[in-house]
Amino acid sequence: MNAVIQKRLGLIREEMKKEGIAYYMIPTSDFHNSEYVDDYFKAREYFSGFTGSNGTLIVGQEMAGLWTDGRYFIQAAQELEGTGVDLFRMQEEGVPEIPDFLYGEMEDGQTIGFDGRTVSCKEGRKLEEKLAKEKGIKINYGMDLASRVWTDRPELPCHKMTVLPEEISGESTAEKMEKVRKKIREAGAEYLLLSKLDDLMWLLNIRGNDVECNPVALSYGFLTQEEMYFFIQEQEVTEEFAKYAEENHIRVKRYEDITAFLEEYTYNGKVLLDEGNSNYALFKIITERAGYVSGDNPTELLKAIKNETELARMEEVYRKDSAAMTKFIYWLKKNIGKQEITEVDAADYLDNLRRNTEGFLDLSFPTISAYKESAAMMHYEATETNHKTLSPEGMLLIDSGGQYMGGTTDVTRTIVLGDIEDEVKMHFTLVVVGMLQLTDAKFLYGCTGRNLDILARQPLWSQGIDYKCGTGHGIGYMLNVHEGPQNIRWRFTAAMKEAVIEPGMIVSNEPGVYKENSHGIRIENILVARNAEKNGDGQFMHFDTLTFVPIDKEAIDVSYMQPADIQRLNRYHAEVYEKTQEYLTEEEREWLKEATAPIVG
Amino acid sequence: MNAVIQKRLGLIREEMKKEGIAYYMIPTSDFHNSEYVDDYFKAREYFSGFTGSNGTLIVGQEMAGLWTDGRYFIQAAQELEGTGVDLFRMQEEGVPEIPDFLYGEMEDGQTIGFDGRTVSCKEGRKLEEKLAKEKGIKINYGMDLASRVWTDRPELPCHKMTVLPEEISGESTAEKMEKVRKKIREAGAEYLLLSKLDDLMWLLNIRGNDVECNPVALSYGFLTQEEMYFFIQEQEVTEEFAKYAEENHIRVKRYEDITAFLEEYTYNGKVLLDEGNSNYALFKIITERAGYVSGDNPTELLKAIKNETELARMEEVYRKDSAAMTKFIYWLKKNIGKQEITEVDAADYLDNLRRNTEGFLDLSFPTISAYKESAAMMHYEATETNHKTLSPEGMLLIDSGGQYMGGTTDVTRTIVLGDIEDEVKMHFTLVVVGMLQLTDAKFLYGCTGRNLDILARQPLWSQGIDYKCGTGHGIGYMLNVHEGPQNIRWRFTAAMKEAVIEPGMIVSNEPGVYKENSHGIRIENILVARNAEKNGDGQFMHFDTLTFVPIDKEAIDVSYMQPADIQRLNRYHAEVYEKTQEYLTEEEREWLKEATAPIVG
Repeated sequence: MNAVIQKRLGLIREEMKKEGIAYYMIPTSDFHNSEYVDDYFKAREYFSGFTGSNGTLIVGQEMAGLWTDGRYFIQAAQELEGTGVDLFRMQEEGVPEIPDFLYGEMEDGQTIGFDGRTVSCKEGRKLEEKLAKEKGIKINYGMDLASRVWTDRPELPCHKMTVLPEEISGESTAEKMEKVRKKIREAGAEYLLLSKLDDLMWLLNIRGNDVECNPVALSYGFLTQEEMYFFIQEQEVTEEFAKYAEENHIRVKRYEDITAFLEEYTYNGKVLLDEGNSNYALFKIITERAGYVSGDNPTELLKAIKNETELARMEEVYRKDSAAMTKFIYWLKKNIGKQEITEVDAADYLDNLRRNTEGFLDLSFPTISAYKESAAMMHYEATETNHKTLSPEGMLLIDSGGQYMGGTTDVTRTIVLGDIEDEVKMHFTLVVVGMLQLTDAKFLYGCTGRNLDILARQPLWSQGIDYKCGTGHGIGYMLNVHEGPQNIRWRFTAAMKEAVIEPGMIVSNEPGVYKENSHGIRIENILVARNAEKNGDGQFMHFDTLTFVPIDKEAIDVSYMQPADIQRLNRYHAEVYEKTQEYLTEEEREWLKEATAPIVG
Repeated sequence: MNAVIQKRLGLIREEMKKEGIAYYMIPTSDFHNSEYVDDYFKAREYFSGFTGSNGTLIVGQEMAGLWTDGRYFIQAAQELEGTGVDLFRMQEEGVPEIPDFLYGEMEDGQTIGFDGRTVSCKEGRKLEEKLAKEKGIKINYGMDLASRVWTDRPELPCHKMTVLPEEISGESTAEKMEKVRKKIREAGAEYLLLSKLDDLMWLLNIRGNDVECNPVALSYGFLTQEEMYFFIQEQEVTEEFAKYAEENHIRVKRYEDITAFLEEYTYNGKVLLDEGNSNYALFKIITERAGYVSGDNPTELLKAIKNETELARMEEVYRKDSAAMTKFIYWLKKNIGKQEITEVDAADYLDNLRRNTEGFLDLSFPTISAYKESAAMMHYEATETNHKTLSPEGMLLIDSGGQYMGGTTDVTRTIVLGDIEDEVKMHFTLVVVGMLQLTDAKFLYGCTGRNLDILARQPLWSQGIDYKCGTGHGIGYMLNVHEGPQNIRWRFTAAMKEAVIEPGMIVSNEPGVYKENSHGIRIENILVARNAEKNGDGQFMHFDTLTFVPIDKEAIDVSYMQPADIQRLNRYHAEVYEKTQEYLTEEEREWLKEATAPIVG
């Protein structure tokens, strides 16, 4: 039994009764639909105990349920134990979506409550559609009940911003704004309400520090054809930024004034609005006062296609970051069995190597250090109170990355610490073969990640094995480690975007095998899409690799590789040595020479 | 100059003037949106000279334009020469779709005319949307101008129907109708207007003979929850069918009475209607008198998933049909250079082999026999007046199939007649590798052809080569050689359906290389999708092969094959011998033994 969570749920149920709210919804979101959120916004974790990055809690008087995705099924089941919160495994057969679940549970005239700032317009409208229109259920979106119960809730995060010079951004904010204004007009609108934090940072060439690992500032933007209104907490505005804002005709407003501004603005045209990335509370203001056009933020695609300055800086950053990973692997292999190393120690050692790397600013997400069966949980986090000690057997999965002046990194390796079973070797080899097969893809312009996904997955599928997540995601430039619109996956839900792979896009390539209570394997490299030849058959494309970290040959079983697979691995390893050896010590270099030496079939 | 076509266009322009029609549209369709049509319906060919199976002619006073797809770009350019008809290459960059083209050309108040029976509801509504709603252009859909000019137009085809016994169909029409009625209700409708001929044949377990190579009868169906109304030309009704209809509560009406029936029927609910497969004229009647639900014909998916009786019969039919192909290849290899053989002779010889095969009813499409550079045209047809003579060099592409009691076949082989260049061998080998890679796919249930396509295409893409068509299509059971909803292709236009591959579905697997003025290669096998293991990761699927015809080893260059590719080819060839040798003569069998002997890397 988990008495803490049960007590908190009891208290919120009392508040619900007072307000006449039958069901209360607590999503995992700040006011900007950010993927990672500051502690202030972690109400769902506070009321459920589930610490994963994605999940929505529904509380009724007689039930509580948590919806989360396949990455977290194992972890959520563990964390929810004894809380009285039921786990709803999203996308599994027979598991209803939240609107459908509430539709079944609720009666006409009852009220569903939530804080409309933490719910995307898309989700809010789905509830409206299903509950208010099809059944007479009332929606109260002005209800921040969590704050009433959560009395020691942290403060709203507030840290100073920095401005990126053009030799880092590669393009001025003025040029970017002109491109975006053109896209707004093409969409048939006059204005853009921009709530997505990384899009705002990209557009203004600034970075913030309000979210752990994500260099973003809590802010809103309202872009007209002449002006850029930027809403930010007053204490975040530095002298440097104030001057920069003036030079670039950015009108700075207070963060909390966005609501009043949108209520009072005189609209002479429609507002372009990304329903997936604007919150429901602001959406309601806009729709009551002006027409709107529903469409993607034009910033999303522009931001995803990196410019040549960004790409050149990322190449350099990835070489240094890769070298830090190699140093870590060398240290781990050398010391395992000789000194006590826990999952947390390993993560700390790697994080420190990154901290000592030139240009380092922050981690790009909390390092995942998962030993043996823990690695079967895709987003396991070892903690001070709950972790394993490594021994010279099995494997350690390390998924980590950094924010650097000049790029954001993300890399996963699964490292052999001692004896492993033949089946594990087979799984490891199939993952490597798939990863390299996708890396080596040549494809026509027009392909999306849905066309390409099977290249990574096929070696596993051929053995009747799948991984329950996408193969790849976009990555920011000194921004969020996950960004859209591109994605490599074989199946898309209605909520997911499917985007054509454009030259200059960055995607991760991270197939894996996850066997509950046994082992987890993931190998992740980062790729950049580039144009290949154009001929009568069309514009061909290919990927370049940014990540250069050895793949553990001790877990390779060549009997699962074709000669082409072996060549790919050897070619990759030759490049690993060539591109990173300059950052290594003599000892590390010697070890890497061996670790990247060609294998034979 | 092509005076015949120019004269016909002149005459239709005069009729257009009389009727006040600014633009006249002639699609390639009968009243049922059938892919292949009888001569009666070949108005587009009559007025343009283009003989391909897909194309729409637009005639204005100052212009005439033909829209067709990538399969026909080369052929259409040749056939349109001197006609004054411009070629619009569909899906090429910068080529407008017909509604957009007309929108640009036409002025408010002008009229676009066409015969609404030959235009699908979907296409008609698109024109309505773009031309009538966005611009004040009038639509006259009751205009059969073609018949006025085309004075020697053939009669409407009319041949007797046959009834399939249940040991051939595997499921009674009563059972099928119950399934369809349930789907109608699930779609929120009461009635189904069924215009698609092969769906009607499937539902009633009958076959007709009104379209060359397609065993269908011109007919309509109107299925209510209690009755089945079937509209058919009176002369097609045999005594056998009349008795069968009575037993199965099928109410037989005259073909030409469909309009009056739909106008007079008392509707007590909505009509389910497939907008892509119902004609615009009938759609207008329905929408004026009853509500409608837009949705796929439920018959389409049910028909595509073959039952075990159908699958078992197809296996047998494909073995015999494959043997006929093998006999043909043996004859061709033996006689080339020794006697004169033209493209037409080769096709005739093969057609005769099929005719002498047990259970043969008809060809499933006119045999494509294309020598050397002619094969670069995907749907080239050699004619008595325009064909090549084969010599002992280069390759002959043969794409052909039969209608049998127990199945419809479709197979393509490209056969070496003598010396071929190294580049041609490379192309041939890459096609074989891709074809076998797709055959060998194992994949999770839920995949569509869009996920799988790259398995066939990747070996070619990796060399910067593409083929401008899909990789695979569905195939009927004693029905049309092309059927939906499944498709294997990497890109879908809005008009195309994307369907999950279900166990029991039949798809073709036919990658190719087409080099204008040089050579064309296509290798086509037919596959049936089957369930593989189901485990914690999901329901896996795989393909079984139905086609067993040797692949010409003389065009194989093993340097483009991995060991796994070589094993796949050898495994396939071993099966070819095993499954077909019993139908061959001693000499043929000896030759096949050699032709299917393993290759080494």
